[in-house]
Amino acid sequence: MKKLINSPDSVVTDALAGMQALHPELIHVDFENQIVVRADAPVRGKVGLVSGGGSGHEPMHGGFVGHGMLDAACPGAVFTSPVPDQMLAATRAVDGGAGVLHIVKNYTGDVLNFEMAAELAAAEGIEIVSVVTNDDVAVQDSLYTAGRRGVGVTVLLEKIVGGLAETGAPLNQVADLARRVNAQGRSMGMALTSCTVPAAGKPTFDLPDDEMEIGIGIHGEPGRRRVKLAPASEITEMLANPIIEDLGLKGGERVLAFVNGMGGTPLIELYVVANELTKILKGRSITIARSLIGNYITSLEMAGCSITLVRLDDELIRYWDAPVRTPALRWGM
Amino acid sequence: MKKLINSPDSVVTDALAGMQALHPELIHVDFENQIVVRADAPVRGKVGLVSGGGSGHEPMHGGFVGHGMLDAACPGAVFTSPVPDQMLAATRAVDGGAGVLHIVKNYTGDVLNFEMAAELAAAEGIEIVSVVTNDDVAVQDSLYTAGRRGVGVTVLLEKIVGGLAETGAPLNQVADLARRVNAQGRSMGMALTSCTVPAAGKPTFDLPDDEMEIGIGIHGEPGRRRVKLAPASEITEMLANPIIEDLGLKGGERVLAFVNGMGGTPLIELYVVANELTKILKGRSITIARSLIGNYITSLEMAGCSITLVRLDDELIRYWDAPVRTPALRWGM
Repeated sequence: MKKLINSPDSVVTDALAGMQALHPELIHVDFENQIVVRADAPVRGKVGLVSGGGSGHEPMHGGFVGHGMLDAACPGAVFTSPVPDQMLAATRAVDGGAGVLHIVKNYTGDVLNFEMAAELAAAEGIEIVSVVTNDDVAVQDSLYTAGRRGVGVTVLLEKIVGGLAETGAPLNQVADLARRVNAQGRSMGMALTSCTVPAAGKPTFDLPDDEMEIGIGIHGEPGRRRVKLAPASEITEMLANPIIEDLGLKGGERVLAFVNGMGGTPLIELYVVANELTKILKGRSITIARSLIGNYITSLEMAGCSITLVRLDDELIRYWDAPVRTPALRWGM
Repeated sequence: MKKLINSPDSVVTDALAGMQALHPELIHVDFENQIVVRADAPVRGKVGLVSGGGSGHEPMHGGFVGHGMLDAACPGAVFTSPVPDQMLAATRAVDGGAGVLHIVKNYTGDVLNFEMAAELAAAEGIEIVSVVTNDDVAVQDSLYTAGRRGVGVTVLLEKIVGGLAETGAPLNQVADLARRVNAQGRSMGMALTSCTVPAAGKPTFDLPDDEMEIGIGIHGEPGRRRVKLAPASEITEMLANPIIEDLGLKGGERVLAFVNGMGGTPLIELYVVANELTKILKGRSITIARSLIGNYITSLEMAGCSITLVRLDDELIRYWDAPVRTPALRWGM
């Protein structure tokens, strides 16, 4: 196992300490509760946005804490759900009196633990709404998940909804927008290689040198099928067409196109995929009105990519464009 | 060879087409000359900044074209110098009447070709100054290079000098600042794995499962030594200490700390390295006043990292903080 770590036991806390050291003006890491909190939390009168999940998907979610996006993130161990105590501590830390939105990716552990944390927080008088993301069109049920998995839309949702929350909008409106972004978004991913969880010390799965996995989950969960390696043009079609069809995208519509790297894929390859995606969308008269490209929801050092499309309207564009300042996403400030 | 490409022959142009498709508001790709040009070039009265080098280091340099950074980038084939015609075309395209600065990484091919382009441009009446970056402390001479190699400082220099150029400063002042940033910066990198050049189809070098290369170049050129795998704490010392000593950093000084991924290393590991770097600098009473972390000067899918430190003063901080809007670096606008 070749990794830049000190030990599998300390990788998450070491990385959190690195985040704290590099971004003290944006975030504060509460090591006792293992949560990443916006430096100026709680923001009075603003809905607090809390997300979380296993580590190993960096920059998600800790890298999205800051003005215009999340108020707190709860990182679990690598590929392991955080516990309700973390979520409760994060909820308390960001409650500015306007309630807290939990943004939960659809994995059974995450969902159950966020439910428990929401009950505990509610018992303390904090108003909580939870929104679950489930945008992965690859498979219906999967390892760790009943229903569709929550993947790339989560990143885009956290940005868009963060933009609205910053205006002081009430909790129900913020939650409605979150549900709407999830409903308008779909994703699918693929892997060329496996990844290695530090504590396991060996690849999560075996993938022969001449094969790839289409529809992979972000923890290496099985996808739709294994197929022989193919050119980027064919791979992009295998990902984009199911998304477009499931979302019912029509000519003349606008999308936010997100080409995401799984952690081990260089940017030059992601731009090759982006070019193929552009051709596919152009062929259907769908306009890329906004885009994001890079490693934002990763699976350690897995080589591969995912594509996410979100149907845009003027309101979504407005909040996508709104200023954001986090360790991993920043513009307008 | 597992890559998201259509063919080794088309990877550079396909990726450039992807850049053009996703960032039409920032850049324009001139496919005939294979150059990436700022969308609003030439900017009247502003010194034009041109850089370039082999592809495979994305986002460098095309991803740094835009307001507050480069005016044009010349991408060669993968790990291959661009040709003088590209550089000349880029120089013409960005000359707004205030002259053009060539930012050249110290590789023999790049240096020679930029020299030839500068002569051709000068013959056309364009005022040109060239600044060569040579910040890699790992080795004195290397494959492809006489003297030290130009690596991570190039990215930071392009941002800082881009900030000054945006104010309308004259060419000699812009060039002086470029020389000063290079003189105040040092870098060193390491690799856990090799990378595979698409046209070669096999790894550039062999690295046993239990070894790493300290002082690697960005094309896989040999470094200082091969050693057994070690914890991130020791690896970070092997990179940071030679930089600190070569730069003569003293307690009380401020630095811009850049923890760079080589393309295949996940962000969680880069933050582990950042944490170790913070401890080393703190132990010497050196302050990280600004930082950058992520994949900015890469070697395809190589796993590994590099560290760059630039000694900061108020002027450098002012131009580092200045607004920038490029495909890969953006803040303040």
